[in-house]
Amino acid sequence: MAISLRRARTIIRKAMEKGQEMELKPLSVVVLDAGGHVIAFERSDGAAPGRFAIAQGKAYGAVMLGMAGRAQMARAEQQAYFMAAVNGVYGGQVVPVPGGVLVRDRKGAVIGAVGVTGDTSDNDAEAALAGIEAAGLTGEA
Amino acid sequence: MAISLRRARTIIRKAMEKGQEMELKPLSVVVLDAGGHVIAFERSDGAAPGRFAIAQGKAYGAVMLGMAGRAQMARAEQQAYFMAAVNGVYGGQVVPVPGGVLVRDRKGAVIGAVGVTGDTSDNDAEAALAGIEAAGLTGEA
Amino acid sequence: MAISLRRARTIIRKAMEKGQEMELKPLSVVVLDAGGHVIAFERSDGAAPGRFAIAQGKAYGAVMLGMAGRAQMARAEQQAYFMAAVNGVYGGQVVPVPGGVLVRDRKGAVIGAVGVTGDTSDNDAEAALAGIEAAGLTGEA
Amino acid sequence: MAISLRRARTIIRKAMEKGQEMELKPLSVVVLDAGGHVIAFERSDGAAPGRFAIAQGKAYGAVMLGMAGRAQMARAEQQAYFMAAVNGVYGGQVVPVPGGVLVRDRKGAVIGAVGVTGDTSDNDAEAALAGIEAAGLTGEA
Repeated sequence: MAISLRRARTIIRKAMEKGQEMELKPLSVVVLDAGGHVIAFERSDGAAPGRFAIAQGKAYGAVMLGMAGRAQMARAEQQAYFMAAVNGVYGGQVVPVPGGVLVRDRKGAVIGAVGVTGDTSDNDAEAALAGIEAAGLTGEA
Repeated sequence: MAISLRRARTIIRKAMEKGQEMELKPLSVVVLDAGGHVIAFERSDGAAPGRFAIAQGKAYGAVMLGMAGRAQMARAEQQAYFMAAVNGVYGGQVVPVPGGVLVRDRKGAVIGAVGVTGDTSDNDAEAALAGIEAAGLTGEA
Repeated sequence: MAISLRRARTIIRKAMEKGQEMELKPLSVVVLDAGGHVIAFERSDGAAPGRFAIAQGKAYGAVMLGMAGRAQMARAEQQAYFMAAVNGVYGGQVVPVPGGVLVRDRKGAVIGAVGVTGDTSDNDAEAALAGIEAAGLTGEA
Repeated sequence: MAISLRRARTIIRKAMEKGQEMELKPLSVVVLDAGGHVIAFERSDGAAPGRFAIAQGKAYGAVMLGMAGRAQMARAEQQAYFMAAVNGVYGGQVVPVPGGVLVRDRKGAVIGAVGVTGDTSDNDAEAALAGIEAAGLTGEA
């Protein structure tokens, strides 16, 4: 099962609505497929220009390692040099903090990831989960 | 004047609708701001996974050089080594063919660019122009 | 509102004059636009040859993240691996210390950033702020 | 002998004045030292955002190879693969066309280079030469 563009749009809209409800700073949201490639992205008006790279880095590490942002952060805190090395092998495209959320299908297989950035990492992750659930999928933050 | 996220969404949807009307292959569309940074991107179901980089490269070269895809292609045909060198200084992020379309405001200032990829370069450019016009802006292909 | 070349020149000259008044080491000063692209740069006689990259890195991170040097430094001290990862996604172009100063217009929107390097980070930031104020703009260090 | 900041400023201002006299498009001008490092840069209002990289690439190749833009272009036309390889070893930072002008002292030693971009390559080179002469130095286009 792949994330369709229709579902990716739902994820982005609902994550942004959640951010507005929670009164977060302007969010940026990316949805990647199971190969780590971009399906859709939106940056809210007022967000800093470089937000694509942060959102993508959060989601990319999640897909490539099969490990959500919180687990990556725990590993980075235990073994900073390991996550630095991982970042090297993936061309600098990994941002190991919450806000990178794995998307799973009903059988538990990873079918992509969502990256949210703009507020604190924990709030970013909460908005991502809201978007993923609204699309009828299961997120792992 | 900046391209708002609302307008970027209109550009993407209308470019994709134009593609469906013209019976093109599945399109991918990116909208960049005046600094070459991503505002929004969508990849149609059925498009190849690597389409983000192609769409972004078409639009990025347009913004950074202030030169639309057709003018870049003409220069590449006259002086292939020049466009190769330009690509080098911009980190390999330039795809000098039609489908990279400058977006101008009423006074003629460049406020961003749209990159479309998926069908022939000329058809890609036509879809981009349709999206830009639907958003009340002026495109230069 | 964009920073004009005239204003960028004023920022650079006044930042350098401030450095002379404070008897700082020879300064180098860059002014970037809202997309992180260079408007103007000057390196004082006697400064080390590699100063462009340091000045640019201080200002670039500020614009791309919408976060001034002091806030970046605080984040780097809390989560070193996070700022290392951010540096990766921005191609190694981020120097997260004071001296990278956001420039805001009257409504508070970020319209660019100034990067100063040559003396201590705090003195660099003070010189940047002096230049920005002399140009009639508001800095956030 | 090194190019002082005072002289670099003169080069930039006079190159830009020459561009206005000749009614060229908005120019961007960089001055590099004998090691290929930036002394000063200015981008005219209205120039495309990516002009720093093009100006720098024209001047950088000139200094690093000790060969002005016209000679680089001739070589690129004869042996495209050679200039492509040169570009590779210099990290993609070489733009081998006119507008990259060597600066020599009275004894003929290379003390830096000027890179101008914005109009045709030949017009860019003419503006660079005007700036270099106004600063009492000798240019080789």
